[in-house]
Formats: sequence, C-alpha cells, structure tokens
Amino acid sequence: MSTVVAELKAALGDDCVRVGDAIPERNRDNTSLGTPLPPAIPRALLLPRTTEQVSTALRLCHAHGQAVVTQGGMTGLAGAAHPDNAEIALSLERMTGIEEIDTSAGTMTVWAGTPLQVIHEAAEKAGFMYGVDLGARGTATIGGNVSTNAGGNQVLRYGMTRRQVLGMEAVLADGTVLTALNKMMKNNTGYDWPQLIIGAEGTLGVVTRVVLALHARPEGVQCALAAVASFDDAIKVLRATERAFPGGLLTFEGMWSEYYKIAIGPHMRCSAPLPDEHELYLLMEIAAGPDEGGRERVEAFLADLYDEGTLRDCVVAQSGPDRQRIWALRESPYEWNQKMPPAVQSSLDISIPLNRMSEFVATLRQTVPGRWPNALYVAFGHIADSNLHVNVRVPQAEATPTTKKEVDKAIYDIVRELKGSVSAEHGIGRMKKDWLPYSRSPAEIAVMRSIKSALDPKGILNPGRIF
Amino acid sequence: MSTVVAELKAALGDDCVRVGDAIPERNRDNTSLGTPLPPAIPRALLLPRTTEQVSTALRLCHAHGQAVVTQGGMTGLAGAAHPDNAEIALSLERMTGIEEIDTSAGTMTVWAGTPLQVIHEAAEKAGFMYGVDLGARGTATIGGNVSTNAGGNQVLRYGMTRRQVLGMEAVLADGTVLTALNKMMKNNTGYDWPQLIIGAEGTLGVVTRVVLALHARPEGVQCALAAVASFDDAIKVLRATERAFPGGLLTFEGMWSEYYKIAIGPHMRCSAPLPDEHELYLLMEIAAGPDEGGRERVEAFLADLYDEGTLRDCVVAQSGPDRQRIWALRESPYEWNQKMPPAVQSSLDISIPLNRMSEFVATLRQTVPGRWPNALYVAFGHIADSNLHVNVRVPQAEATPTTKKEVDKAIYDIVRELKGSVSAEHGIGRMKKDWLPYSRSPAEIAVMRSIKSALDPKGILNPGRIF
Repeated sequence: MSTVVAELKAALGDDCVRVGDAIPERNRDNTSLGTPLPPAIPRALLLPRTTEQVSTALRLCHAHGQAVVTQGGMTGLAGAAHPDNAEIALSLERMTGIEEIDTSAGTMTVWAGTPLQVIHEAAEKAGFMYGVDLGARGTATIGGNVSTNAGGNQVLRYGMTRRQVLGMEAVLADGTVLTALNKMMKNNTGYDWPQLIIGAEGTLGVVTRVVLALHARPEGVQCALAAVASFDDAIKVLRATERAFPGGLLTFEGMWSEYYKIAIGPHMRCSAPLPDEHELYLLMEIAAGPDEGGRERVEAFLADLYDEGTLRDCVVAQSGPDRQRIWALRESPYEWNQKMPPAVQSSLDISIPLNRMSEFVATLRQTVPGRWPNALYVAFGHIADSNLHVNVRVPQAEATPTTKKEVDKAIYDIVRELKGSVSAEHGIGRMKKDWLPYSRSPAEIAVMRSIKSALDPKGILNPGRIF
Repeated sequence: MSTVVAELKAALGDDCVRVGDAIPERNRDNTSLGTPLPPAIPRALLLPRTTEQVSTALRLCHAHGQAVVTQGGMTGLAGAAHPDNAEIALSLERMTGIEEIDTSAGTMTVWAGTPLQVIHEAAEKAGFMYGVDLGARGTATIGGNVSTNAGGNQVLRYGMTRRQVLGMEAVLADGTVLTALNKMMKNNTGYDWPQLIIGAEGTLGVVTRVVLALHARPEGVQCALAAVASFDDAIKVLRATERAFPGGLLTFEGMWSEYYKIAIGPHMRCSAPLPDEHELYLLMEIAAGPDEGGRERVEAFLADLYDEGTLRDCVVAQSGPDRQRIWALRESPYEWNQKMPPAVQSSLDISIPLNRMSEFVATLRQTVPGRWPNALYVAFGHIADSNLHVNVRVPQAEATPTTKKEVDKAIYDIVRELKGSVSAEHGIGRMKKDWLPYSRSPAEIAVMRSIKSALDPKGILNPGRIF
C-alpha cells in the first residue's frame, strides 16, 4: 500500500478507504454507459461522510501531488468521473440528504451526493418544484449536476443548473473549505466564486453542499405536438407562444422529419399523433394557469397559428396517456440500441445559433449520406435553447474502428463552421477534449489554464479533463 | 508628460488621450453622487474607439505597471470607477451602439458604452424587452451594468444582469482580447470565464461587447398596492401570487410603516392610496396576460387574499396615473435630500435571508432610536429578492463627522449577525471594502485574491477596489 493511501486510512479510518477488489464496479469505470474509455481501477476509493473528511483527504493528496477524480452518480456522458489507474477516486455517495427546506426563502440546502429525484420529491412535498430535470434523475446526483451545469427539458423556462445555485460549499485542491451557503437572490460582494466551480467538471473544487432556488410549481400544463414546414416557422411559433403565455412556455422541443419517421417506423413503433409528411415537429408544454380554461386557451391560440398557416397540423393532449404518447416520440432514441439493427452510433450534443439552424440541418442532410450512404441520421432536441442532439448510425457491416471518430469530426466540422458549441450540456470531460478548440479560442483556453493553476496549482483535481 | 502617457498618445493618437484640464469633470470624480471620496484628476483619460485600442492601451499600461480605472456611465454607488490621481482612466464612452439584434435567437449584441435606455428602446422596437432596468438608465452603460451585475425592480422575474449575458468580449490586464460572442443558451465547453468578469467591478478585465438575452414583453401588467400585518403574511402573498400567475409576478416591493408615513407625510406629499395604519405595504406588478380579463383575475385573486385575512387592504391601479401614484411612493426617497430637513444620510443596500427579515426590522427599530433618538429610519426594497434598502437620517445638528460611518457600522453589525449581505446590488467598490469581511470569509477573500493574481498579476486593473 502506498504512503498516501496509508495516510488516508489513518486519517479517515479504514471504513472510508477501499482498495483493489473492494472497489465496486460502478466506481471503477463507466463502460456501462457505452463510453469508449478503457476500464480502470483507481488506486483507492474514498468514501467520506463529512466536508471535514473531504478536506482532510484533499489536503493529504495535495501534499503528495496525488491525482483525485471526484465521482457522483456516474451518469455523466463525457467521462469526467471515469477514473484512471493512477488516480484516487473520491465519491460523494455517502454525503447525501436534504439539510433544510426554507419555505420562506424558497430554497433547499442539500448535500452533494443527493440524487436529483430525491430533490424533486422533497421540493414537491414542500409545495415547490426544482427547475432542472433529466432522464438519469434516479442516479445522477446534485453535485454532479452542479459540476457539469446540467440542463434538461425546461432550460427555456428555468435555466441550466447554474441558475438554480444560490449558495455553495466546496473544497479546493489543498483542502481549503469555502462555505457560502447563501440563500439570497442578491449578493454582490466580490467575486462570485461558485460560478467558477459550476460547470468546471470537478477540475477546480469538490462541491459538498449547495443551496438551490425552488420555484412555484406551474399549474395547468398543456402538452401539444405541432408540425411546421420550416425552422423559421418554428421560431415564429416560439416567439408567439412566449408573447401569448408570458412565463408559461416550459418546453419547446424539435424533431425533424427523419427523426419522426424512425420514431413511428417499424422498429420503434411509437404511435403517430400526426402524419409523417412534415418537415419539423414541435413538442410544446405550456403552463396555461390553474383555472379550467387553460386547455381551451392553448387550443384557441394554436388554432389561430394553424389558420394563419404557421402551423401545418397540431394536436393537444386531452389526457395523461395522450401526453405520454407525445413524450414517447421524444424519448424514443433511448431505446434505439435495443430495438434497431446493430450499428456504430455517434450521439452528439451540440448548440447551433438559431439563425444558422436551418443551414445546419441542410448541411447534415448532404454530409452524412454523401459519406455514409446507408447511415441513419436524425436531429432533434431543445431547439429553443439552441441545443440539438444529432444521432448518426452507420450499419455495423459498413463501419470501421475509426468510423465513430470520423462521423463526430464530420458533424463537429459543421458546428465549427456555424460558430456553434461542441457541447451544449454534456460537458467536455475526457471524451471531447479534441474538440474544445472548435468552440473556444486559444486565448480562452489559456485563461482557463490560468484559472486552473490559480485554484489547483499542482493540478491534482480531475487532471486531463476539459483540456 | 510621463513615458507611459507619451507611449499611449503615440499608439492611440492624441485624439484618444487627454490630460489635465482636458479631462472632463465627469471622468475626474463622482462627487455629484454624494460619495465621500476626494476629488481626483487621473494621470490621463483614454477614449478608445475599438477593442483593439483598448487592447493596445492595456498592453502598454501593463508593461509599465500603470494602474487603470475603467469608467462607464459613472452612476455606480460604490466608487469603483472613481479615479485616483495616480491612475489612468479608461472610458468606454465612445464604444457605443447596438451591433446586431438577432430576432431569431432573441439576442442583442452591443458595445459596452451603450446606455441602458438605448438598449431598452431598441429591444422594444424589435418586439422584445430587456430584463434589467434601473433609475439611472439614461446614463448608466451596459458595460457598467455587467461589471457590477446590476439588479433593479424585476430581478424576481428576470434575474440580475448576470442572467442576461450570453456572450462577452473582454480585454484582460495584459491586453489579451477574449472574444466569446455566444448567442446560445447552452454552451458547456470549459470554464464559463465571463461569469468571473460579471460583477468583478472592473478588477479582472475590461468588458468591450456583450450579447444579451432578450425576453418577450409581458402584456397586461397590473399594478397593485396591498397592506399586510407582518412580513410572514407578505411571504404568503408572494408564494400565492407565484402559484396563481406562474411567471407573471414581475415586481414585489416592500415598504415598512415608517417609510410609508414619510412618503405620504408633509415633506414628500405622495398621495396615499391606503391609510397609514399598516405594518408593511407591498407594491406588486403582475403580468396577467394579454386578454382583457387580466385585471379582473388579479382583482379576484387579491380579493380572496383579503377575505382570508392575509391582506389588510388593497388597491389595484385602474389607469396609468393610478399606477404612477403607486410608483411615486416607491421612488420618493430619491427626493429626500431636496425635500427633507438637512441631515446626514446613510443609504444602505443589503440583503437579509427572508426567514430573518422580521428580526432585522425589529432590531433596526431598537438600534437606531436607541443611539440616534431623533433620526429617521426606513426599510424598503425588493423584498422577494431578499434585498432591502435602509435609509437613516441623523439631523445635521446632532451629527458629527463620524456619524455616517457609525450608522453604517450599526446596521452592518445587524446584517452580519443575521448572515446577510453588505451589498445586495451596488457592489463593494472603494466604499464598502471595510465591510466585505462581514459577508465573506477569509477563505473566500483569499480565493478572490488568487483569481485576481491569475488574471491580473501586476494588479493594474481597478486596484484597491473590492479588497
């Protein structure tokens, strides 16, 4: 056993330090998510119970120049929490639970290891809601959400995780504990250092607690599926809805024709609320207010858009099962790997400026069939946020070991050309480092490195992630 | 003329460099705002026209270790832009104008020297609105707003300036230009460095351009003045309104009884929509939707709160002049110095956690009359944001040269005790440095200093501001 691991055992107790076979599968790697990263067993797994233990652990690792990878729910899609054999893994899984819900301030103070779903349930029980939700809610932790600035389906209305964080406790690389469990919406007293930690993917500090802002739960949420002939028309619908229901538009998802055809096709078999002849389908959720006239107001509003020709077709969910059928369309890609013929799949999470979005889709439609004639390709996602997901599937028989990287590059080349982002919400982690310069200038990356050096001079926190 | 000024003249041209008497009054000091800072003439005033000129200027100043103070509209209330005789002032006043409004993305790209009012007018013309507004809108510039993370009356709904900024161009101390004119709502690609510049009061970089998010203009805005018996009841009204009008509550201002009595009293003579017997008055603005039933919905909602006893009294504005009369109450302190008997006035901008707000007001009511028996004191402000303004006026005859500082300390002592913030929205600048440790721990201030050293190793940008 190495010196640093022995010192960690002495300081934290045997119970908090595991090595070798005692390290569970989930903390070793995240190949279960299909990442191409090699399996790895970290030198040790630390399972602290308190902020003080996190501080002690980092102080010792810092003294030894020992690299540390911080782990939450291990649901990240960019490999930031995937350990290296030479690293010590620091899991926040024992630092879990809700410390306080302040119904006066509308805030929740919560430990970093708490799963997102627990936060949602507690907020609801207290008469509020939490503004960020995502598919991995049962496993993903709030610490991971904060460190990756997680997004989801309601960013349009409530913003990314950054906007939810009012206060933070974090431990720096040398063990310094920064505690700023602020519950106030306004606090202009010097640099807002938590802003740096949010989205830094664990490279600047370990988040131990956060204070989250809660929202009033929207009432009378109506769900609609609409079809438009162009992206320009989608933007018209977006702006008209924002004007008609101020603060009421919660979700505005787009699915282009290729996507819709696959979703209702022979493999995925989603029910088809609308025919498949349209260019672009919009999934909208609108909080129309608590009174009974909400659905009628949404229907009347959409009927006007139909009459003026902006919408080509539209249905409004009349029941819970109706709504589920509409959402099943949007969630169908999660089951592609089970239900579709085997293929090499690229799943990209990009942003494109809205005024270039049509150009992006047109270029995608030329590029993919031009190089991979039998590939499937779809574009869909949180279009009001400028966030697209692009999935490309090259049939197994036509793929080589480099196909995935080639597809990624072909798409990211378009993203760079259109001044988009190579990562809208998933982060850079270990897996997208090659593409960071596509979205950030050398001067920007240099300033990121300066900040990293200032906060973590020995470079022990999540080394090799982001840059 | 010193070497550095000569080099600046050679590089930028005589037209961009002024010295001595050629430096206008407004760039010399901001005593017009009543700050206690001594008048000062900077070594030179730089008036660049381009980002490249800003870069050249900073590169030369950096080489000489020359301190630089950045100036916008000179409306700041903490003295961050107030020059020192040994500093060179860098004014962004010539870098003004709107570069682009992207109606597709709902964004505006604008030069830092542009006055806030110009931004509001352009946004409205394009069918949108900008989310931050404040009294000094005609003079305050967006660069200053960003650098101080300005707030205002609608933070509750739209957030501080931080939330409006999607993209930024800034120049670092050594002249490095960082350009990230991002228009996308989501862009998780490494550290979000603009977050550091926002609210750093010019100490980390000079903002030259920003991309701002625009919003749909709320329609059917109703204005009400309500009275409640306690702060707890005010919170009940707040939460009920948020539930009843999701996304519709724009403004929620509080005015305690002492304030209201002065506003409608013999000096200020505001009209009194409600009698003066209540503990706390609430000014609410609610966007009830574009249809004609909006006012009736607001009235019915408030009537229910009255019937259940949460509201003690209430009026809803029936006309524009009605609304102006209600707002005149809230804006009356701006004219105190003209209309009230002469006094030494402390005007504090603090945050208090909502669950300690009643305690704060109770303590204020004991502390001030206990020490300054004839002083006026009032609490009012953006209570939904946890932001209070506290004004204390000690009659001139009873004041000494140290009275203002003593009053400040007495109030800040309460703020510290209740874990509040010594600056909700105005910033620390030069004037509140003594109080920073009341709201920030030594570890937090140390990390601020590390960040400062990383981005401005020679400490030339706004030295001596914040810490």
